[in-house]
Amino acid sequence: MAAIIPIPLPQNSYNVVIAAGELSALGTWMTGEVMVGQMGKRALLVSNPTVFAHYGETALASLRAAGFEVAHHLIPDGEQYKTLDAIAAIYNAALAHRLERSSVMVALGGGVVGDMTGFAAATWLRGISFVQVPTSLLAMVDASIGGKTGVNHPQGKNLIGAFHQPRLVLIDPDVLATLPEREFRAGMAEVIKYGVIWDLGLFERLEQSAACDRYDRTSPDLLHHILVQSCQAKADVVSRDEKEGGLRAILNYGHTLGHAIESLMNYEGIVHGEGVALGMVAAGHLAHRLGLWSGAENQRQQGLIDKAQLPRQIPPQLSIEAMVDLLASDKKVKDGKVRFVLPTAIGSVTITDQVPGDLIGSVVADLQVPGGS
Amino acid sequence: MAAIIPIPLPQNSYNVVIAAGELSALGTWMTGEVMVGQMGKRALLVSNPTVFAHYGETALASLRAAGFEVAHHLIPDGEQYKTLDAIAAIYNAALAHRLERSSVMVALGGGVVGDMTGFAAATWLRGISFVQVPTSLLAMVDASIGGKTGVNHPQGKNLIGAFHQPRLVLIDPDVLATLPEREFRAGMAEVIKYGVIWDLGLFERLEQSAACDRYDRTSPDLLHHILVQSCQAKADVVSRDEKEGGLRAILNYGHTLGHAIESLMNYEGIVHGEGVALGMVAAGHLAHRLGLWSGAENQRQQGLIDKAQLPRQIPPQLSIEAMVDLLASDKKVKDGKVRFVLPTAIGSVTITDQVPGDLIGSVVADLQVPGGS
Repeated sequence: MAAIIPIPLPQNSYNVVIAAGELSALGTWMTGEVMVGQMGKRALLVSNPTVFAHYGETALASLRAAGFEVAHHLIPDGEQYKTLDAIAAIYNAALAHRLERSSVMVALGGGVVGDMTGFAAATWLRGISFVQVPTSLLAMVDASIGGKTGVNHPQGKNLIGAFHQPRLVLIDPDVLATLPEREFRAGMAEVIKYGVIWDLGLFERLEQSAACDRYDRTSPDLLHHILVQSCQAKADVVSRDEKEGGLRAILNYGHTLGHAIESLMNYEGIVHGEGVALGMVAAGHLAHRLGLWSGAENQRQQGLIDKAQLPRQIPPQLSIEAMVDLLASDKKVKDGKVRFVLPTAIGSVTITDQVPGDLIGSVVADLQVPGGS
Repeated sequence: MAAIIPIPLPQNSYNVVIAAGELSALGTWMTGEVMVGQMGKRALLVSNPTVFAHYGETALASLRAAGFEVAHHLIPDGEQYKTLDAIAAIYNAALAHRLERSSVMVALGGGVVGDMTGFAAATWLRGISFVQVPTSLLAMVDASIGGKTGVNHPQGKNLIGAFHQPRLVLIDPDVLATLPEREFRAGMAEVIKYGVIWDLGLFERLEQSAACDRYDRTSPDLLHHILVQSCQAKADVVSRDEKEGGLRAILNYGHTLGHAIESLMNYEGIVHGEGVALGMVAAGHLAHRLGLWSGAENQRQQGLIDKAQLPRQIPPQLSIEAMVDLLASDKKVKDGKVRFVLPTAIGSVTITDQVPGDLIGSVVADLQVPGGS
């Protein structure tokens, strides 16, 4: 069962391959027809120690078998190492392995590895090729597609970055077997997001599924469906708007407030998907209270978030004032106004900067009361 | 006397304005018709202390008068500060001034300021607008046009970078009055380059001029002509090849060896244009000895390099072996072969990777003998 989803862009089209068990054929895919354009045979595989322990040798062996002269570089595991210093270390590895303009960097890991490898590839020799091999559900359905790359500034997530499209994305669902459960659920938050903003069918299939909170309780068929539909949704959006001029902003559904919460918690005790889940719950309430979304559909969203065992209460220690203040410094702010993506029906959203500040405060406060909302 | 040179690109076209005395109208140009597209009114001016002392207040006043909310950030003067750390300081200034995606960075300075500001703009919030206001002859005719941005790696110049096109380039020749003579001559090396690779007419006009080695001996008319023809040559080349896929490589004429010499001298006691001049002299001899270029034309190139008071001897202490070795690690190397841009006639060049290593060594050795070549 292999699906190939094309990402058509004006200048840098590429394919997303979803195929169980195909990590061991990475090198073959990278030299095959799905790989757009030509490239050389020097490669640098970037990963983290955890992922590399599971899948590094398989990936390296596959690349070598396909004729690549490959070295590897490991970056420490965790969002706190998503820094310019860690990028400098990738540059050093690129230099040591004498990467040329025709060479390729391969990101084997989750979102952090993908974002950093992509940024290093975007900025080494003014841009070389890179291939995404995402190993977390979050990276598979979100981070690996669309060309967003970057690192964190001490004062804000992903403030430093570039748009740089991969040449190929290879998704092997089998690698999710070793993903921690919490990370699986966090990825499911983005899957639910695609249901709400774009794909009613996907949303309904998740509602009808026996479970969607753990890899070992998700059938291969359902997982394949989830991956294909999510990647297709992202492909639909980014191919219409490569650099976030307009439509692509809908992908930030749940992210505006989600980022603020993650940031105020210093990215401790919360993972990105959980922030997104909280952001979606808040956005749902905002949309409902603004008269944009029915209470019934808002309830269905909450039901699905519960089913995925994702949080829907904001930690009580967070200052509402600080959160509202932080929103104003979000990089998506335009002319000082906070823009929210709000649902109008399952599968459809609108973007507005007309959300009153006191309503935001009120909704957030409701989500802080234990047992509230 | 104002010239507007369009740089037509598939996605990011922009204009180069060449107009004496117009720095004081920078803000007007940035809000006028030559500025492609829309942008917001938050701006960060980046400069260095030397340039800022001369022209900073004029630029800031002009931006404020046009309605910009502008802050400024100074980076230390010199190639040795063209580092990721200095970029991080620009990021901090961007954050402190709350730059948004619609904001703009303005580079007021020479090539180092332009390259670094451009790289910071390319990578802040995944890319914001920037405007080039070059203040050195080198930056006017070369660095400010074409979208190459970057910083140095400890082991190589411009290894880190991105392609990011400016939204406008404003060239005010009057600011050359405060440029050190040596820098003026260094810029003239790039002007001579355009004559050799692209523009016989420009080459001949330089040959016929009374002098071309100092600002105060160059008439405003000649200077205007030099700037227009050089910028037009660069525009012709980059608009046909935005990201250095093919034709653009001819702009590297003189640069392959030039970079190696600069690097081996640790960028001390030599400026970029002098390296390029030496590289052009060497390339001229290589082309002649390979039977590609006539001895007479090679002599004419040397004559013009002499007229601009540029060096044509390589410092005797440099190791030829180290130089040839370094060439192999140049980022323009493809599949391990060093590519040279070699003249075939004044105004025309060819690109070849078929230059024997021992010929390179022999030509370089000839240029080291005092009084030789």
